[in-house]
Amino acid sequence: MGWVELVTVLALLQFVFFGAMVGRARGKYGIRAPAVSGNEMFERYYRVQMNTLEQLALFLPALWLGAQHMDTQWAAALGAVYLVGRALYFRGYIADPAKRELGFSLTIFPSTILLVAAFVGVARDLLGR
Amino acid sequence: MGWVELVTVLALLQFVFFGAMVGRARGKYGIRAPAVSGNEMFERYYRVQMNTLEQLALFLPALWLGAQHMDTQWAAALGAVYLVGRALYFRGYIADPAKRELGFSLTIFPSTILLVAAFVGVARDLLGR
Amino acid sequence: MGWVELVTVLALLQFVFFGAMVGRARGKYGIRAPAVSGNEMFERYYRVQMNTLEQLALFLPALWLGAQHMDTQWAAALGAVYLVGRALYFRGYIADPAKRELGFSLTIFPSTILLVAAFVGVARDLLGR
Repeated sequence: MGWVELVTVLALLQFVFFGAMVGRARGKYGIRAPAVSGNEMFERYYRVQMNTLEQLALFLPALWLGAQHMDTQWAAALGAVYLVGRALYFRGYIADPAKRELGFSLTIFPSTILLVAAFVGVARDLLGR
Repeated sequence: MGWVELVTVLALLQFVFFGAMVGRARGKYGIRAPAVSGNEMFERYYRVQMNTLEQLALFLPALWLGAQHMDTQWAAALGAVYLVGRALYFRGYIADPAKRELGFSLTIFPSTILLVAAFVGVARDLLGR
Repeated sequence: MGWVELVTVLALLQFVFFGAMVGRARGKYGIRAPAVSGNEMFERYYRVQMNTLEQLALFLPALWLGAQHMDTQWAAALGAVYLVGRALYFRGYIADPAKRELGFSLTIFPSTILLVAAFVGVARDLLGR
């Protein structure tokens, strides 16, 4: 599970980075806590972080459960797609929210594959095949 | 752990569905990213997804930790209550936010039971009994 | 892993408590769902919960992965720092959002150490050392 662990660590480090970018945007665009709106650019950084939180809550369980029911190297490779997808999502969203689609697709796609692989594997186990 | 895995996969699929409903509501009610407010109906869909994210962050660890310290079939049965609770929460909230209470109770209840079971089991282990 | 499990249960209970405080603040400050803004005090409680959700999504995987690659008692001790940090974050933020810094540092610090320990351990495993 070494590569799956590596992908997990990198996904968490990426999330920490997005969080740090929100903190920086707070200062730069003068949005004082507890506010999370009032400046379009700040909101972009904040929405990247929130969407990544949503995707992470799906991706990490899907990755680990999927890796129990498929080749772990393939699971890790799908994880690498997720990491690239999130990086593109960040770049696209900051440039223009309408450009977030490609990055979003590349994060939801690997999670869905992993989840389906987990579902098929779990169903087979329960049906005793 | 087959049934616990199945509940996990279904809870994640349900979360994906709620997310897709937010995406659809974005188009339908004309809320353009990065905005997440401005239309009451859109906000209902968005709040269902956010509340489910909060509940998922509690439920999944509680389910897996609880299942280490209680009968796994009972843990999975509590997970089934969670799934029904979330479905009712979605239906209730979209119809009228005041109607979200039953669904909410049916999601926080199984998580709390699982968490208490985990706590008792962990405490027993640490006390060497 | 007994102490790591205990820290996990306590972190989840703390999160449940913060969520209950948001529910109470909703009534007290008259913020009706689906709204999550409109009163500064309500927003403080809500932001504590949301920030804790973000931190929990980082902390729990970092704790469990870190504990695979370092002394588990040390991992649990770092977890105890997280718990104290979150309690201080709550107290500070409710009193004055500008006072949230110490509590925030004491939650991001243990997560980062655990994540770095996991990264080093995983990298060593993959490099076969």
